[in-house]
Amino acid sequence: MALDNESFDILLSTVQRFVREQLVPAENHLEEHDEVPPELVEAMKELGLFGLTVPEEFGGIGLSAGQEVQVNFELGRTAPAFRSVFGTNIGIGSQGILMDGTPDQKADYLPRVASGELVMSFALTEPDAGSDVGALRCKAIEQADGSYRLHGQKIFISYGEHDLTENIVHLVLARTPDAPEGVKGISLFLVPKFLVNPDGSLGARNDVRCVSTEHKLGIHGSPTCVLAYGDREGATGYLVGEKNRGLQAMFVMMNMARLIVGLEGVALSERAYQQALDYARERIQGVDALSGEPVAIVRHPDVRRMLLSMKSQIEAMRALSLVIAQAQDLAQRHADPEVRRRNQAFVELLTPVFKAWATENGIRLTQLGVQIHGGMGFVEETGAAQHLRDAVIGVIYEGTTGIQAADLVGRKLARDGGAAFAALLRDMSDVAEELQRHRDLGDIGSGLAGGIASLRQAGEHILPLYRDDAQAALAVSVPFLMLAGTVAGAWQHGRGALAAARLIEARGEPGAFLKGKLVSARFYVAHVLVQALALAETVRCGAAPVAESADFLC
Amino acid sequence: MALDNESFDILLSTVQRFVREQLVPAENHLEEHDEVPPELVEAMKELGLFGLTVPEEFGGIGLSAGQEVQVNFELGRTAPAFRSVFGTNIGIGSQGILMDGTPDQKADYLPRVASGELVMSFALTEPDAGSDVGALRCKAIEQADGSYRLHGQKIFISYGEHDLTENIVHLVLARTPDAPEGVKGISLFLVPKFLVNPDGSLGARNDVRCVSTEHKLGIHGSPTCVLAYGDREGATGYLVGEKNRGLQAMFVMMNMARLIVGLEGVALSERAYQQALDYARERIQGVDALSGEPVAIVRHPDVRRMLLSMKSQIEAMRALSLVIAQAQDLAQRHADPEVRRRNQAFVELLTPVFKAWATENGIRLTQLGVQIHGGMGFVEETGAAQHLRDAVIGVIYEGTTGIQAADLVGRKLARDGGAAFAALLRDMSDVAEELQRHRDLGDIGSGLAGGIASLRQAGEHILPLYRDDAQAALAVSVPFLMLAGTVAGAWQHGRGALAAARLIEARGEPGAFLKGKLVSARFYVAHVLVQALALAETVRCGAAPVAESADFLC
Repeated sequence: MALDNESFDILLSTVQRFVREQLVPAENHLEEHDEVPPELVEAMKELGLFGLTVPEEFGGIGLSAGQEVQVNFELGRTAPAFRSVFGTNIGIGSQGILMDGTPDQKADYLPRVASGELVMSFALTEPDAGSDVGALRCKAIEQADGSYRLHGQKIFISYGEHDLTENIVHLVLARTPDAPEGVKGISLFLVPKFLVNPDGSLGARNDVRCVSTEHKLGIHGSPTCVLAYGDREGATGYLVGEKNRGLQAMFVMMNMARLIVGLEGVALSERAYQQALDYARERIQGVDALSGEPVAIVRHPDVRRMLLSMKSQIEAMRALSLVIAQAQDLAQRHADPEVRRRNQAFVELLTPVFKAWATENGIRLTQLGVQIHGGMGFVEETGAAQHLRDAVIGVIYEGTTGIQAADLVGRKLARDGGAAFAALLRDMSDVAEELQRHRDLGDIGSGLAGGIASLRQAGEHILPLYRDDAQAALAVSVPFLMLAGTVAGAWQHGRGALAAARLIEARGEPGAFLKGKLVSARFYVAHVLVQALALAETVRCGAAPVAESADFLC
Repeated sequence: MALDNESFDILLSTVQRFVREQLVPAENHLEEHDEVPPELVEAMKELGLFGLTVPEEFGGIGLSAGQEVQVNFELGRTAPAFRSVFGTNIGIGSQGILMDGTPDQKADYLPRVASGELVMSFALTEPDAGSDVGALRCKAIEQADGSYRLHGQKIFISYGEHDLTENIVHLVLARTPDAPEGVKGISLFLVPKFLVNPDGSLGARNDVRCVSTEHKLGIHGSPTCVLAYGDREGATGYLVGEKNRGLQAMFVMMNMARLIVGLEGVALSERAYQQALDYARERIQGVDALSGEPVAIVRHPDVRRMLLSMKSQIEAMRALSLVIAQAQDLAQRHADPEVRRRNQAFVELLTPVFKAWATENGIRLTQLGVQIHGGMGFVEETGAAQHLRDAVIGVIYEGTTGIQAADLVGRKLARDGGAAFAALLRDMSDVAEELQRHRDLGDIGSGLAGGIASLRQAGEHILPLYRDDAQAALAVSVPFLMLAGTVAGAWQHGRGALAAARLIEARGEPGAFLKGKLVSARFYVAHVLVQALALAETVRCGAAPVAESADFLC
């Protein structure tokens, strides 16, 4: 499924305008009232945002993954709390029902998901089951009519309770009494807030209640709930897909969710960058080094360094997100099974890298956005600090950075013996070689080639290390992941530089945009990619002190 | 001046207990009510905290710089808003009056500063004069009686208005009508909130008013005010020191203030570390790799990596702060003028490095503290996020990181042609050589030697670059500063490792504490010091893209 190009362009510019004209001006409302104004939720429904990824046959817009990433980037240019309203509807929720739901479930739920008649939530985490999903204990007991009664507590549930829509439907991970221990005994259930009568009208209140909502550092306006299922008779739920196959469903849903969370890091950084750039162009402070005249702070080299640090890393991350999404579409829809397989391996390898790298960068870059504002950045009304507060959750939810790194090293790298990783290195090297052959881009090419060499060495070290001493490999898994992200970003800059050079050649004159691309690529090499050597060295020799620390830390 | 060792130990343990038993439990009060409870301010007065650095002859405790740093580290183990109450009294305020006040001003103000009868504020920044101090426009017009009338607006004034003490005295930077332009025409004035009658009793309200207070990202409980001086007849003020010499006074006061702000970064990181370590030891999640039993998360290698990252960087920063403070005491009090001169140069070189490096680290390390808590870290009640919010101001106030870097490269390095820098490199190399000769510490020694080589190369590049093209040097001044801090931290770890090894040899058995020191040093080399090579490379080749960005950023 995908929208045709013309309709997609219209959608994209409509979303851009909606974000700029309606959501951005309401950001302060989020902070002050800790809720999304109901009239904006109605506007979102009308725009079709709740059904972006729901197939057209069920009343949605039916975006491809590549399109979804682009729309999410635009939606990300404002507070993420807005997107949270329909985030589960277009992500995990609709995907879960589409993938594993019965025809009846699809027909019952998807049109309501798409219209915004209901908001979905995804209930995974429990007080004693966070990163360790297999520890979850929520119980689901089968009833005579085939439905289930659920009992348990879930925490950190975004939009777990609110009055913005007629109904809420929770996708809940739980265990049946006969389920095996750990991750192999988890099933997926649909639990509506209000039960639905056979005629489609809303029936009785189900036995699920919000016990409390969290007071959080950021994403104000997006309620984060503690939910109690089955405090009385049990919450009525309906199995989605096969029993005990909930984790597999979760992993598939998580891949796309992680890409979108990574994108939040990118988009928040972009929002922070635009705001900081505007401020730097307006704020007069200090004098020009040559003329002695008062200047806007964008003229000061260190301010420009900070702005370029933001711009160059945002471009690298954004390009990588598109490449991953494109591969996701090919993995799902290409006619050739070998192309599908190759792209699937690519997506699975790079998704944890992108998610963690982009959200870690998101924190650092939004903080640079604060810094460029000086003292004004620390004042909440300026809005710069809000982006930083909002960015901090990105490295935690949908799997912490540590979990992404463990997934990368322990699953994605180890299970195919590094085959997908080797293929990625080949793709990158092709770009480095083309750059090195180019008249004007040899410096970017040698920078990239050096980064690839560091990444290769680190991979060749960590792969056998994981086999021999998994704990040692996990101790340096985050530096390895950050290395992979850093080099992948340089790869994207290399591709961008080649494309820019071709256009400059064709047009004769560079122009500010294309020149900016080349400067950004060179900045990335000199200020960001240089870290590859350091990260590779940490991977090589950083595990030992972590192992030795057990004595005094534990 | 300095307190004798025995009295100092008593003071230190009293402060520790006060912080632990009274301030830490009131942190939530700060967040909820945005003020320090008045009874705690009274307790601070009784403890003598307002007069820590005021000489005994004026009723204070008379700490040396080395002692002040240690006390501040203890005070820093809680929200910095508490320390702000008396921060200006023991820092800039008392120092300004001591250094340049008349005998009458000292006798009038210092005993009241020490007793906490009044709180001082330091009024420097104006809406159009932040980093560019020379742009300030607040006017001071001399009166027949020798006093002045001040007119102007000041912003970002900590404790500029409150009811916690009988009086407030503002140290204000302003210009007389005949003053030269820029930084050479700034004078320092004392402006009390209530004028003081000849008998010492409080008289009329002075013409200075708080126009508004800021709603900030962090340091809640520490009011940040916009102050209007002279909206009516003019605010009465008294010149401190010579006319037009205010900036020189400010620089001297700033050196100690910057050391103390850097220390806030260290202490907040320590507070975050202790909290994260407690949590990591208690929180059960996941299973042990070998036994398969549920374990506390401190057992997971990546959690330990984060904890060690905090611990090793905190130790490096704390040691450097003590070394600088010790040099400060020698610079002020040693009998030999050559020793005084050498130590003064050392303090001036390393103060901007420490201030910026420690506060930048403070943000990253308090964020790791949030991260170790997982989802709970994002919940405000946990308290981990508060440290991050509080840490963000450190890289802004008392001179941003960019200002510190410009001071380092443009003043501290350039004005003596790198002589103090060369002396520092020699001190560091002595430690590296001793480590390399040591049976068990050769690896730390070669790591340090490599870091020193990177720093030397970067210094040899940036010093002539600043002469030839100051803008280019400033474009890589922050990476240069972070390189200097990173290597200086390794130098301190090297010294610590040598001391630990000596103690281990003497005792026969290492014990957890000393073993921890060696592991921490090795972790620092493998995970932190490795960045030296990358930072030196950025200094070498990172200026060009910043220069080229003018076209499209400005």
